[in-house]
Amino acid sequence: SSFPAITHGKRGMTLEEDINESNKYYRATNQAIIHKKPTPIQVVSVDYPQRSSAKITEAYFKQPSTTDYNGIYRGKYIDFEAKETKNKTSIPLNNFHTHQVEHMQAVHEHGGISFLIVRFSTLQRTYLYDVTHFVPWFFQHQRKSIPLKAIESEGYLIPESYAPRLHYLQVVEDVYFHQ
Amino acid sequence: SSFPAITHGKRGMTLEEDINESNKYYRATNQAIIHKKPTPIQVVSVDYPQRSSAKITEAYFKQPSTTDYNGIYRGKYIDFEAKETKNKTSIPLNNFHTHQVEHMQAVHEHGGISFLIVRFSTLQRTYLYDVTHFVPWFFQHQRKSIPLKAIESEGYLIPESYAPRLHYLQVVEDVYFHQ
Ligand SMILES: [Mg+2]
Ligand SMILES: [Mg+2]
Repeated sequence: SSFPAITHGKRGMTLEEDINESNKYYRATNQAIIHKKPTPIQVVSVDYPQRSSAKITEAYFKQPSTTDYNGIYRGKYIDFEAKETKNKTSIPLNNFHTHQVEHMQAVHEHGGISFLIVRFSTLQRTYLYDVTHFVPWFFQHQRKSIPLKAIESEGYLIPESYAPRLHYLQVVEDVYFHQ
Repeated sequence: SSFPAITHGKRGMTLEEDINESNKYYRATNQAIIHKKPTPIQVVSVDYPQRSSAKITEAYFKQPSTTDYNGIYRGKYIDFEAKETKNKTSIPLNNFHTHQVEHMQAVHEHGGISFLIVRFSTLQRTYLYDVTHFVPWFFQHQRKSIPLKAIESEGYLIPESYAPRLHYLQVVEDVYFHQ
């Protein structure tokens, strides 16, 4: 059976919607150019009822090989992954794929700025967590999740407002340009 | 009627395949991290025969709001659009969308490196053409195409080899880091 794809209302409720709205605001105010990368999809069959409106009739979601977002801020390359959890005490590591984490590490090694944006939705708190803290949890520690306590102490709470909804560039500015 | 989506053989024949292979080479040799952005697709209907293999049964290609490729090279943000033409004397401007060109201009203003990679496939020549030369053709000149002569004189011929197939970072290095 077929269901319509899930869409949310105009009031951004998901982390992704909040970030997308913030990015729109940053672009409109000429502060940064950061976009969500499209979801990679493997197209298998296409109908051409008219040349102008090709209809995809069979396709599959592919696993992303990189992160959710990238772009440029103050001349620097920015690259990050956004994750949301309902957990109250940790974020499970099975939310991440090895090649995503390797990509973030590589960006860091090439001089880019790379981090996670992690929302604890039940707690209504969203953190920026740098790649250098994140990578050891993924590859070295024998854990299945990153404790909230670690993110609280090594990460940064992201301020929220009407516009931008999630002012993560404020944190980026403080952490990567003034420390 | 339904047709299988077009796929090409292993020997990269299209410009996109050549760039993708070159990017793989650059990543493998740790020179740069540049990826093709996935084609944006509007998903309308999804079947869930099993949770693990969602099948998209209705979807449409969306117009990209940015360019084909972006990433990081030597700490700098890189963003470019690739276009191929069979024309021998010019590249038609109707190949480009206004928001793509605006995006490239914005990247340039934020301190990123932005350019076109243009292949004249009949001539078997591929050029890098900087955004600062490209933008006036799009917005100011009363032309429907950019003459090859302009690209020859203001752009740079990209060397080709076995690996990388299209060594555009060689040109990036010379033009943006040593001039
Ligand atoms: Mg995500
Ligand atoms: Mg293209």
